[in-house]
Amino acid sequence: MEAPKNNSLFQFVDACLRGCGQVMFQNNPVTGFIFFIGIFYNSWELGFCAVLGTAASTFVAIALGADKGLIKAGLFGFNGTLAGIALPFYFVYSPELLLYVVINAALSTIIMSALMNFLGKWGMPALTAPFVLATWILMFCASKFGILEAGSLLATSIPDPHTTISVGKISAMTFLDGVTKGVGEVMFEDSVVTGIIFVIAILVNSRISAFFAVFGSLIGLLTALVMQSPEAPLRLGLYGYNSVLCAIALGGLFYYLNWKTFLYATFCMIIGSIAQASISVLLAPIGMPSLTWPFVIVTWMFMFASKGFGHIAAVPAEMLGTPESNLKHP
Amino acid sequence: MEAPKNNSLFQFVDACLRGCGQVMFQNNPVTGFIFFIGIFYNSWELGFCAVLGTAASTFVAIALGADKGLIKAGLFGFNGTLAGIALPFYFVYSPELLLYVVINAALSTIIMSALMNFLGKWGMPALTAPFVLATWILMFCASKFGILEAGSLLATSIPDPHTTISVGKISAMTFLDGVTKGVGEVMFEDSVVTGIIFVIAILVNSRISAFFAVFGSLIGLLTALVMQSPEAPLRLGLYGYNSVLCAIALGGLFYYLNWKTFLYATFCMIIGSIAQASISVLLAPIGMPSLTWPFVIVTWMFMFASKGFGHIAAVPAEMLGTPESNLKHP
Amino acid sequence: MEAPKNNSLFQFVDACLRGCGQVMFQNNPVTGFIFFIGIFYNSWELGFCAVLGTAASTFVAIALGADKGLIKAGLFGFNGTLAGIALPFYFVYSPELLLYVVINAALSTIIMSALMNFLGKWGMPALTAPFVLATWILMFCASKFGILEAGSLLATSIPDPHTTISVGKISAMTFLDGVTKGVGEVMFEDSVVTGIIFVIAILVNSRISAFFAVFGSLIGLLTALVMQSPEAPLRLGLYGYNSVLCAIALGGLFYYLNWKTFLYATFCMIIGSIAQASISVLLAPIGMPSLTWPFVIVTWMFMFASKGFGHIAAVPAEMLGTPESNLKHP
Repeated sequence: MEAPKNNSLFQFVDACLRGCGQVMFQNNPVTGFIFFIGIFYNSWELGFCAVLGTAASTFVAIALGADKGLIKAGLFGFNGTLAGIALPFYFVYSPELLLYVVINAALSTIIMSALMNFLGKWGMPALTAPFVLATWILMFCASKFGILEAGSLLATSIPDPHTTISVGKISAMTFLDGVTKGVGEVMFEDSVVTGIIFVIAILVNSRISAFFAVFGSLIGLLTALVMQSPEAPLRLGLYGYNSVLCAIALGGLFYYLNWKTFLYATFCMIIGSIAQASISVLLAPIGMPSLTWPFVIVTWMFMFASKGFGHIAAVPAEMLGTPESNLKHP
Repeated sequence: MEAPKNNSLFQFVDACLRGCGQVMFQNNPVTGFIFFIGIFYNSWELGFCAVLGTAASTFVAIALGADKGLIKAGLFGFNGTLAGIALPFYFVYSPELLLYVVINAALSTIIMSALMNFLGKWGMPALTAPFVLATWILMFCASKFGILEAGSLLATSIPDPHTTISVGKISAMTFLDGVTKGVGEVMFEDSVVTGIIFVIAILVNSRISAFFAVFGSLIGLLTALVMQSPEAPLRLGLYGYNSVLCAIALGGLFYYLNWKTFLYATFCMIIGSIAQASISVLLAPIGMPSLTWPFVIVTWMFMFASKGFGHIAAVPAEMLGTPESNLKHP
Repeated sequence: MEAPKNNSLFQFVDACLRGCGQVMFQNNPVTGFIFFIGIFYNSWELGFCAVLGTAASTFVAIALGADKGLIKAGLFGFNGTLAGIALPFYFVYSPELLLYVVINAALSTIIMSALMNFLGKWGMPALTAPFVLATWILMFCASKFGILEAGSLLATSIPDPHTTISVGKISAMTFLDGVTKGVGEVMFEDSVVTGIIFVIAILVNSRISAFFAVFGSLIGLLTALVMQSPEAPLRLGLYGYNSVLCAIALGGLFYYLNWKTFLYATFCMIIGSIAQASISVLLAPIGMPSLTWPFVIVTWMFMFASKGFGHIAAVPAEMLGTPESNLKHP
């Protein structure tokens, strides 16, 4: 009888669960499993497409003969997870949509491999760029043809640069909703409960990452508040989710955690929130959302930059672990 | 008496003919010559500007001291061919236009050398990016100033993202016109006869490339059909020409032809057609055409990606030949 | 008693002055000092923000542990100078604006280090890209939120692509104003006197650079004139400032000055002026200015390209000096 670890179905499921966990840099199948629970809690359509996207992108990587170590670590899964959720989030769910989910996930795997090759010259990670680029290609096209019906969120989720009327007053609820939903919105989950489930899922793998997820969401919200954002997008967490990802990446994961890297990461979160506003303005003429592109370009800037900064100590690629294990081998 | 091969005029003409052939990756002066015939058959203005652009870009490469082997292979000509045709295609022909053709061709040579240096780190080809970037710089500018008069095609060739009204019904003619014009539109030729002449020209050098030119045009059309495109752009080949180039590049030329690379190339053609719709949407606010940029970015994605895919066997750069010769030395 | 050269305040001031000088590639504190005088002459708000931006970006580089040689040469200052001036130029001056100047300058230092790491693979300079990218991120955001009040220049300084009505006739004043203001507009100075002060400042360090600054401004103006630009932007120097920077960079600084590199640089200045029109068209839908991005991409194109051109002799990075010193060691 075969041991479960050598079973290829077991390995595939493990890679998919880690893939979902890797959306927030957590190489842990339990974290990924709880993430899926959180998504299904909010919506079974989003949950199903998340699973389908993760499986499709991982399967395509196997079929094309990608590196087994990378597949096993879920690195060909997380862009598929996001590519899967994005479509039913912005378009009305239909059986045909599932075909587009599979195409989007497959394309994200190809762009992932392309960016790994490109960025490998500097030892830089692709982050969620493959998801964003693949989804933009499909969404711009879908907006042109009538095949996918745009859901109500496509219009409302893009903050209007000309609206400065504040609907709703800033209150404690703005912060409670905004910070938890900010974590949820990393995977398009407009739900306080799902946001909390996501934090618990990260806690399973790393307390430091869980702290930074919440802290990043708060910094993103505060930045937009100082910039005099109206209340609605603050409460939806729309200025939080990019900063959440900036925070987890730079908060003890790619850098050794200390006061200097903490301040550096915090500045990155602030710029992540500002970039969310800026890239929304840039895409406003075609009515398309920024997805996680603000996180991607801002984090690339900060990570490319730190190689030239003697006071910002990066963890060598071959030593990367959880923020906790990084602290043990400084 | 000097042998013709050592005559510098002969060498220049040979480089220009190969340059025209290289628009579709055919390093063959006869193919290039028949391409020119096809362009002149459709329009003497387009033909004259194609010749002028090819000659100007090749001449500038010689004057600046570019690598002689690259010049000889026509690699400083093909972007000039396209840079030459694009201007009289989008603007009303006038003697002044010829000055802009020469500037556009010269700029394409500079961008070609720049991209060769940039992409050389990964051994990636520049494709038609020099033509697209140079032409965009000149066209955006021309649209601002009144010096060049926009032709009727500039408005109509950009598919309107808000038009979903199908003018005309899908028929056998949609396919016959669309597939042949798709090959023609690679060089802005809205002509069934020119499309057929182009296929014959490719046949002279490679039957496999000729097959993929037609197959790519068909896949591009079918993809747009499934996406519920109106009939008019299908019949004009507007969703075909990017896929034609994807197909020739990945169909046995840069990869060893087998079932795995065939499926990989076909997926690339599908994405090429989708990207044509998406990039048209992106450029719609400024009313500018996508040119062959969809082909360029999609093919770069697939070619950068395949270095990480063990099942997709790329032909080493120093072994590149026709698809037929690649098959002999796998 | 400490010698002034070892005094850290002296070193900081020296780095800031050189930083201001580096806006036009002059590694000379006297040049930088006269630049500051020119800016203050035109406007004390612009002058104050220029000093604050230069100091902030240099300080952040020191705090993050950037390379001391680069800091000393002012390479972490010049983007801060521009990042500082741009905000009070486009937005109404207010005490809050100073916070954004500091954020913009700090971000420019991070992007500078990122681009140095990225472009270092090819030995290419970052030019003013850090200033442009940082300022765009902040300006797009500021246009979304109401915190910064847009000044009248934000609307008027973006040439309207649909306006072809010539207000004012071309006269000798168009040339006198346009050429001097073109040099001034490199640092957003709409002043003939400041333009002349800038030329004098460059003269202190290099007569060749001073010549090319004026020559570039003229070529940029002439190019736009041939393209039938209306008179107003010509006279404001809006088609000159990008060509000024192209001219100083390629005119004897990065290349050994001879007739071939002179013609190559002149073509670069022409394309710089054309690109200014094109990038304005590209950004028109969101109403944002092109800043010095036309100079950046065009100069990158020409400098990446010249590595493949045997007739264009580049100065090796370790030999870079003034155009005059380059001529002595060809």
